[in-house]
Amino acid sequence: MPRGWVGSLAKREEWRIAIFDRTVHSLNTAVQHDMSRDFMRRAIALALENVRSASGGPFAAVIVKEDRIIAEGTNRVTRTNDPTAHAEIVAIREACRVLADFQLSGCELYTTCEPCPMCLGAIYWARPARIFYAATAADAAEAGFDDAFIYEELKIAPAGRRIPMTQLLRDDSLAIFSAWKQQENKTPY
Amino acid sequence: MPRGWVGSLAKREEWRIAIFDRTVHSLNTAVQHDMSRDFMRRAIALALENVRSASGGPFAAVIVKEDRIIAEGTNRVTRTNDPTAHAEIVAIREACRVLADFQLSGCELYTTCEPCPMCLGAIYWARPARIFYAATAADAAEAGFDDAFIYEELKIAPAGRRIPMTQLLRDDSLAIFSAWKQQENKTPY
Repeated sequence: MPRGWVGSLAKREEWRIAIFDRTVHSLNTAVQHDMSRDFMRRAIALALENVRSASGGPFAAVIVKEDRIIAEGTNRVTRTNDPTAHAEIVAIREACRVLADFQLSGCELYTTCEPCPMCLGAIYWARPARIFYAATAADAAEAGFDDAFIYEELKIAPAGRRIPMTQLLRDDSLAIFSAWKQQENKTPY
Repeated sequence: MPRGWVGSLAKREEWRIAIFDRTVHSLNTAVQHDMSRDFMRRAIALALENVRSASGGPFAAVIVKEDRIIAEGTNRVTRTNDPTAHAEIVAIREACRVLADFQLSGCELYTTCEPCPMCLGAIYWARPARIFYAATAADAAEAGFDDAFIYEELKIAPAGRRIPMTQLLRDDSLAIFSAWKQQENKTPY
């Protein structure tokens, strides 16, 4: 067989593999995209149900690991007298309980609305891999949930905030961090 | 009695009252100041105990209403597998449970360290009257707890953050806010 044939066959095989790989990648992306939409649709359905049953605010979240929902949360502030019971916090606490871990490594969080500063803080402490959100903070503000005020306050120095913050006994408190540094039996987080 | 005498007596009475008021105010302020220090000392003792008993991170908080501690909290992240179980969040949830309310009106929160963004968000949702803190965020950073990274991320637009945030199905989600607006049986918060 002339050399040209071998080159041509190898080339054709290369193309075949490349086209196959691209098709698999496209299919994976499409499936992934569809699954992401399904998870968000589930979160939207939960939020709608939360409003219609008068159980709490118009927000829900689901947490997914390896393409499976492992935890769901809806806003429970007024129902449970817990100002921290936003959908994301409820879902994060439940997912951590299910995984018996204080980290959400490799998880995705789907929330029906851009997280407020409290929830965004919680997300950074829980460290999921990725966040999907539907409505914007502006959409929420239009419905009467204005987190912008809190975002603004975060930028102001403690003494100048609307809720006054006063420093007290700093020197006494430093003993706590010294004790922490000396404690050998500790779990960093 | 000549008129001058009446004026002079009234004047003297005025001074007496003014001096009395000022003394009471100074005493009140001194007592208040001492009580604030006592509440912070209690928080510091709780945090030290939390570290020494290897129960969690070097942080504690107490919540006071009408000069009485109504709730206490220590960091429980690793012990309870709950990344949201910072001292302030634990104390806020407990105080709300005690008061059977989702607002901490008229309460003071004493925390051994400047709150992280998650806890500061929770404080704004719970709305206590005043915050006292001991150590600064810089003191905490020096001990290995660097909240500055989260504060920085909050300022960045969602798509540019270290944990990627992707918008999905915004239009579908708007039905949730419409349902909320139409729902008459709701508790705003």
